[in-house]
This record gives sequence, C-alpha cells and structure tokens, in this order.
Amino acid sequence: MHFATATAVHPVGEGRFDATVHPGWDIGGNANGGYLMAIAVRAMTDTIGRPPLTVTGHYLRPAPAGECEIEVTTIRSGRRLATASATLTIDGKATLTLLATFGEQTPGGPSRQMSGPVDLPPFEESAAAPSALKGPRPELMNRIDIRMHPEDSGFRRGAPSGTAQVRGWFALAGEEPIDAIALMLAADAFPPPVFNSGLPVAWAPTVELTVHVRGVPARGPLRCAFRSRFIHDGLLDEEGEIWDSAGALVCQSRQLALTPR
Amino acid sequence: MHFATATAVHPVGEGRFDATVHPGWDIGGNANGGYLMAIAVRAMTDTIGRPPLTVTGHYLRPAPAGECEIEVTTIRSGRRLATASATLTIDGKATLTLLATFGEQTPGGPSRQMSGPVDLPPFEESAAAPSALKGPRPELMNRIDIRMHPEDSGFRRGAPSGTAQVRGWFALAGEEPIDAIALMLAADAFPPPVFNSGLPVAWAPTVELTVHVRGVPARGPLRCAFRSRFIHDGLLDEEGEIWDSAGALVCQSRQLALTPR
Repeated sequence: MHFATATAVHPVGEGRFDATVHPGWDIGGNANGGYLMAIAVRAMTDTIGRPPLTVTGHYLRPAPAGECEIEVTTIRSGRRLATASATLTIDGKATLTLLATFGEQTPGGPSRQMSGPVDLPPFEESAAAPSALKGPRPELMNRIDIRMHPEDSGFRRGAPSGTAQVRGWFALAGEEPIDAIALMLAADAFPPPVFNSGLPVAWAPTVELTVHVRGVPARGPLRCAFRSRFIHDGLLDEEGEIWDSAGALVCQSRQLALTPR
Repeated sequence: MHFATATAVHPVGEGRFDATVHPGWDIGGNANGGYLMAIAVRAMTDTIGRPPLTVTGHYLRPAPAGECEIEVTTIRSGRRLATASATLTIDGKATLTLLATFGEQTPGGPSRQMSGPVDLPPFEESAAAPSALKGPRPELMNRIDIRMHPEDSGFRRGAPSGTAQVRGWFALAGEEPIDAIALMLAADAFPPPVFNSGLPVAWAPTVELTVHVRGVPARGPLRCAFRSRFIHDGLLDEEGEIWDSAGALVCQSRQLALTPR
C-alpha cells in the first residue's frame, strides 16, 4: 500500500474528514506517530489549501488501526501564512491533537548553514534496517525503506553505540516520491536514538513532536540524523535533520518523549 | 513591575481569562513573544492545575499593549499528563494560539547528557546587554537582566561575530525567582542569533516557538545559548538551551521565524 493511499482523507463536512488508520503502519499495534501525524496533516492541508511549514502534534493515546475522524479548525488565514488546529479521534477518543502553520518557502534570499548533510555510506550499499525491537519484523519496514548507518544499529545485537544517535537513509517503498506530508513520517520512522544510549530498548512514547518543513525534497532517498541530547527526569528530547538527494535541508524535527522503562 | 504581576490573569468564566499586555515588555511596540506566551501559559496552567512541560505557540499578529483575553480548552486530562489549547485575543483578533501539555518531571531515573552548560564569564563581571536594535534602550531591558557573552554582542557595533549564535545570562529584575512560566520569557528574550550572521539586523518575526520545560530552575541567573543553524528560503530556525545556577538543563526552545529583510 502506497503512503498516499494509506494517508488518504475523505471530506465529510466543513473541516471534517474521515480516514483510516491502516494496519501495517504500526509498531506493535500502535500506529507510528509520524504516520498518524501525516493523516491529520493531509486533512489540514486539504482544508487550508497550502502545504505545511511547521506542525506540532501532541500524542494523547496509543492509536490502534481502524477508522478515524479529523476535525480541522482554521484559526487565521493570512496572505503569506495560515494557521489551523486539528484533532484526530479514534473511537470517539481524542488521540492526536495538532497546531500547524501553512505556507510556502520563498526560494532565494540570504542563506547560511552551520552544517551540511549527514555523512552516510551510499544508499545502494547499505543494508535494509533490521527491526528495532525484538520479535518479528514490523510490517512498517515493508512500506518504508530505512537503511541505518552501520555504526548505529548495534543496539539490535545488545551492543548500543553509547551515543544516543541514529543516522540513515529514508525512502518510501517502490520509490514513491516524498512530499511535505511524507516528511512527517520520515521525522518519526527511525528507531529512537535513545536505543543507542544504553538505556532499556523499549517504547519511548512521544509526548510532543514538532516538524519544520524547510524545503520540498528532490526525488530520491533522504539522509536522516536523529539524536537525543538530554535524557533526564523521565523525559528525553529527540532532534532530527533530514536532507534530500540534492544536499538541501528539507526538514527539522524535535520531540519530547517519555524515557523508556 | 514584576514579571508575575505583568503576566497576571483573571478568570472570567470556564477556561476564560482577562489579562493585560503591559507596555514596557515590548520591542518597538510589539510585545515580546516570550512575554505574550507567558501570559497565555499562566491562564492554561491555572485551568489545568499542573505546570507546563511542553508549549508550542504560533504567532498570528503583532501584539500591541492593552487588554487581552485568553480562552483555554482542555483536550485531555490524564493521570500523568494533561493537554490543552488556547488562543490569546487582542481587540477581538486572534494574536497567539497555543498547544501545550502539562505535568511534572519525575526526578531520578536514568540520565544522559550530550553536553554541559554553556561557558560564560561570571554573571557579576558581565555587562548588562545593550539594546539589540538602534534607537533608545527598550524598556524591556529594565525588567529583565540580560548579560551577553562579550563575543556575541558585536552586531551592535556593526561587527557581527559571523556565527549565528548568542550566549549570555538571563535574570528577572530584582532577583525575582524564575519559574516554569518565566522560562517562556527567557526562551525568547535575547537578541536573535541571526543578528550575528551578517544578515540585516532587523525584526525576525516568530512563526512558531516551542518550549520544553526540562526542570524547575534553582535560584539565580540562568545560562542561555541560542543559535540559528539553518537560514534559507525566507525562514530560519533558532534553538536554545537554558541552564540553571546548579548546572541543570531546565529548558530547550526552538522556533521557526521569518528571515529579517
């Protein structure tokens, strides 16, 4: 199933949409957070009529597969930017709530970069990612094509690198093009960098995820790097950078999550 | 005027508050973004009854001084966390809209840090910050006590450092204690790091600001560091770290802003 199909939304009224949280985009029965955000952002984008620039989602409950509803409220629609909130509901329960601003980048103008794309072995020479957790390979890994940096996959063998970092390539299965909405998935599709910290390899539930879309990706797989810089008092950060095949930064993400137990 | 007084809110109904955007907390007539966020977060905190953990605000319009209203909607109130949205309205116009999750850190448990507090000359030996922009010293600089790293204030003399970074101390005037709500102000009180990039020193309007509260600050001034890593296509990021006098990370911030023209 293509990502575009898996995140399709159907308008049922002013700012109201039906959609399906499809099985196979989950980890252990809980829909991937980036996938869930992508469904909601598609509904928001359809309502606003402009692409997302910055999206924040707060995760309220685990998301089982099944029907869902999205209700979008336009807060302000200006000349350059428009802002909306939305809530995705499953079985009548608010599961993900979002606030986002929509608009276009304005190419050109001054440019400064403090760092360049993350260095990775070539995509073609990299192995597909093993499952992050013990047990059968998640179905999700058949829908996306993640190829981890070999230095960052040791946690799988009980040999975490000691640095809370994961780097690797991200693509959709079948070379499906990656748009601004698919960046939401890319921002939350890798195993958590905390798995390389030496802490228990277990679910680190996202409380909040913010995704800044910094450009429209060129065709081809994305270079991704995620790290957790501060883990303490039951919470951790996770910040990500995503670069396209042309060497442009296309996405920055950051989340606050609960420390795995 | 104390920060606590300047951000006071008055309940006028279920989740509804009146407040005042006070003059003197602005830059050129537009209320400081962190100050405005603090007013709204105080209303949200009063409604939820727990301190903020992660707050995202989207800035919709400049905020002149005067009366304002805040309307808070509780989205979910769980055992550990509660999530709410709010909109701050001035003259009937939505000016700042927010999404936030509330709860407590859980001290103890595993801890990992990729870096330590930013290195600064001692607070007592540092000079109070000059105004960031040309013209008279903003009244705001009498209410907060910012002491910039000497290497980062050159933009004021037309000699930007070339690195889009600002570091320095933050305190409230009169040694007023800094709580989780005052961290919203600290997260947006410094001159934008883009001023040191060599780009024009002019207003960089915040589109989105997210503040993660990572701890309750110990008494004393805060060590702060902000930088813009990626400036392109009319937008820039700005990420911040704030450390307390005991050496604990108490806040992480990130914003997306429009590039100054």
